[in-house]
Amino acid sequence: MSGSPFANTPEPPYYAVIFTTRRTEGDTGYAVMAEAMDRLAATMTGYLGVESARGTDGVGITVSYWESEAAIDNWKRNAEHVLARDMGRADWYAHYELRVARVERAYRWTKP
Amino acid sequence: MSGSPFANTPEPPYYAVIFTTRRTEGDTGYAVMAEAMDRLAATMTGYLGVESARGTDGVGITVSYWESEAAIDNWKRNAEHVLARDMGRADWYAHYELRVARVERAYRWTKP
Repeated sequence: MSGSPFANTPEPPYYAVIFTTRRTEGDTGYAVMAEAMDRLAATMTGYLGVESARGTDGVGITVSYWESEAAIDNWKRNAEHVLARDMGRADWYAHYELRVARVERAYRWTKP
Repeated sequence: MSGSPFANTPEPPYYAVIFTTRRTEGDTGYAVMAEAMDRLAATMTGYLGVESARGTDGVGITVSYWESEAAIDNWKRNAEHVLARDMGRADWYAHYELRVARVERAYRWTKP
């Protein structure tokens, strides 16, 4: 990912995948795969953007934004993404919560 | 906040407030107020939990979960919260995106 850390999403409604994770210790290929998945997601139909943060305690939140639930399902079934998910469960994550939500309202603010 | 970094949310549907921010430099009271707001939110009707992460680049995501849009509106109008929001705009945030979303589906996974 490059440029702004904020997703330049359109007017609602659209969809958000909220992925809250706790990493295991060590990298074991995680950073490379995470970046590859970000790049791949950006090529998918209906992708609107992503926002991501991870603290020094290993807890991270990544929110990806999508035009429709169909676009999310398509991304969920992508073969490379399925592989990354399996590796995530095997190696990278101690726990995660994944929520699919419909964005109803949105506001942004920039310091004048 | 203490205990698990994951919100123990019920079965959907429920609501999420996705708050993605970039902090300004320095603390200037931010940490104290952020913790006070977390404690206050937890006392509000319809509060379900919160998840939060901030990276070393100053970009953070806080997702709070609520039973209903009415609960979110009530929290939005809370006097102390209004004060914190004004201070946030004056001092703590360079930019933020705030999205209100209806959680439709949720999954969790823990390393066996």
